[in-house]
Amino acid sequence: MKLLVAKSAGFCFGVKRAIDMAIEAAKKYPKNLYTLGPLIHNPQAVKFLEQLGVKVKNRIENIPKGKVIFRSHGVSLKDLEKAREKRLHIIDATCPIVKKAQFFAKYLYRHGYTVLIVGDPHHPEVEAIQSYIKDRVEVVGDVELVQRSGPWEKLGIIAQTTQSFNLFKGIVTASLEKAKEVRVFNTVCHATMIRQKEAVEIAKQVECMIVIGGYNSGNTQRLAAICREIQPHTHHIETAQELNPRWLSRREKIGLTAGASTPLWIIKEVEGRIRDLEGSRN
Amino acid sequence: MKLLVAKSAGFCFGVKRAIDMAIEAAKKYPKNLYTLGPLIHNPQAVKFLEQLGVKVKNRIENIPKGKVIFRSHGVSLKDLEKAREKRLHIIDATCPIVKKAQFFAKYLYRHGYTVLIVGDPHHPEVEAIQSYIKDRVEVVGDVELVQRSGPWEKLGIIAQTTQSFNLFKGIVTASLEKAKEVRVFNTVCHATMIRQKEAVEIAKQVECMIVIGGYNSGNTQRLAAICREIQPHTHHIETAQELNPRWLSRREKIGLTAGASTPLWIIKEVEGRIRDLEGSRN
Repeated sequence: MKLLVAKSAGFCFGVKRAIDMAIEAAKKYPKNLYTLGPLIHNPQAVKFLEQLGVKVKNRIENIPKGKVIFRSHGVSLKDLEKAREKRLHIIDATCPIVKKAQFFAKYLYRHGYTVLIVGDPHHPEVEAIQSYIKDRVEVVGDVELVQRSGPWEKLGIIAQTTQSFNLFKGIVTASLEKAKEVRVFNTVCHATMIRQKEAVEIAKQVECMIVIGGYNSGNTQRLAAICREIQPHTHHIETAQELNPRWLSRREKIGLTAGASTPLWIIKEVEGRIRDLEGSRN
Repeated sequence: MKLLVAKSAGFCFGVKRAIDMAIEAAKKYPKNLYTLGPLIHNPQAVKFLEQLGVKVKNRIENIPKGKVIFRSHGVSLKDLEKAREKRLHIIDATCPIVKKAQFFAKYLYRHGYTVLIVGDPHHPEVEAIQSYIKDRVEVVGDVELVQRSGPWEKLGIIAQTTQSFNLFKGIVTASLEKAKEVRVFNTVCHATMIRQKEAVEIAKQVECMIVIGGYNSGNTQRLAAICREIQPHTHHIETAQELNPRWLSRREKIGLTAGASTPLWIIKEVEGRIRDLEGSRN
């Protein structure tokens, strides 16, 4: 059996930076250190941080005092204002690419564009981006929605940073029939594009594809969906324990990738377990 | 036999306006009236104007004095300057939508964008648009060219007004992989989009498609190419005399459309001849 492991699997720059900042903060401030919502969408990594003293609170109202870490997905304008009012010490671990998307959204809005955010309306990153714009903003997750919307005079388009690049392209293409001017800032992050492309390449070659990452991780869900389109035998797992040996039996080639918030230790564990199963087979 | 005639066949607003301006000018100025290049890309219509006294000169150097009509495709910056230097009386019949494309090209250039013009580099409209920009401008007629070009920081895209809307969409989509910001002004004119869509709809239903228009007319050539993709029995003709009865024999459904510069009298002549052939068949 051959195992193809994606080079691009696992932590992206933004997630790595957020984790590093949280670990540094935990060293410096042993007490009253919080993140607003999980720092990244990986329960195992969040648990690890909790062991270092980083507590998760889902609402700013539940943070009495101390330090608050803004997670990689960013925070809404309301939460930012509340944190300032409460005079919390802010450690901003928002991914710089997400910050850019927020900046472009505000820029487009200020310049009179209706802003289309290509993404999942319930994802915290998208909710945060949207919160900086008062009106003239729509979140679109499929091409049909664009075909039913508009027309617009001036349309600005940005994307949730971990969105499917193909969806982004499809929505831009559809919007050309609906607006006289379309101004696009490609905010799909490079790491996401590379990860999706590599996953497609691997999925084409294998008989079974394993995608590792939090079930609450949008980018991992999309990665699995992209692989599944090519290889129906695609399984999304969160930990090595979930690996089902039956998936791998009689497969000659297995593919492995992981979302942007999946720690290397979990990827290595899954990889090891697959190789163990292979060993026991011979 | 059933004949489906496109409602959108024939003169668009810009061509109609140019012809009206030329006829008015011919009434007012019986002498020394010239167009710089053919007013529109239809030899029959140009001949008709010549009979009214509107002479065609291909170079501004060959116009000694008098009035010059700028044709629907617009003129280059150089020709504009020469006409002014010679103190010719200018009658500007440039299509307003072409003017808009020229404006957006200059606007994008001034704001630091590299300008991509989706079009035919040898078409006078494209040559004129391009002449207003010093550098940072490329004319692209196919998607592959974009895939081989770039990358760009800021990319502005406009189109020759009569281009294929599908090509325009394809080039915008491809450019998203090549530029951080893509700013698109859709300058494909509405009449062109409607004409292409209707031609596709008709071509799907018929066994033979007739497309009428000047052989030098880019938009008619593209219209024929679009129809041919769907119905290989597509014939591009310039006049009714060219209609070959064999094309129509044993066809139950015939489609008919015409480019933006095709006069109604030619369309009616072709239509009449098809009905005559049908009559003689019964």
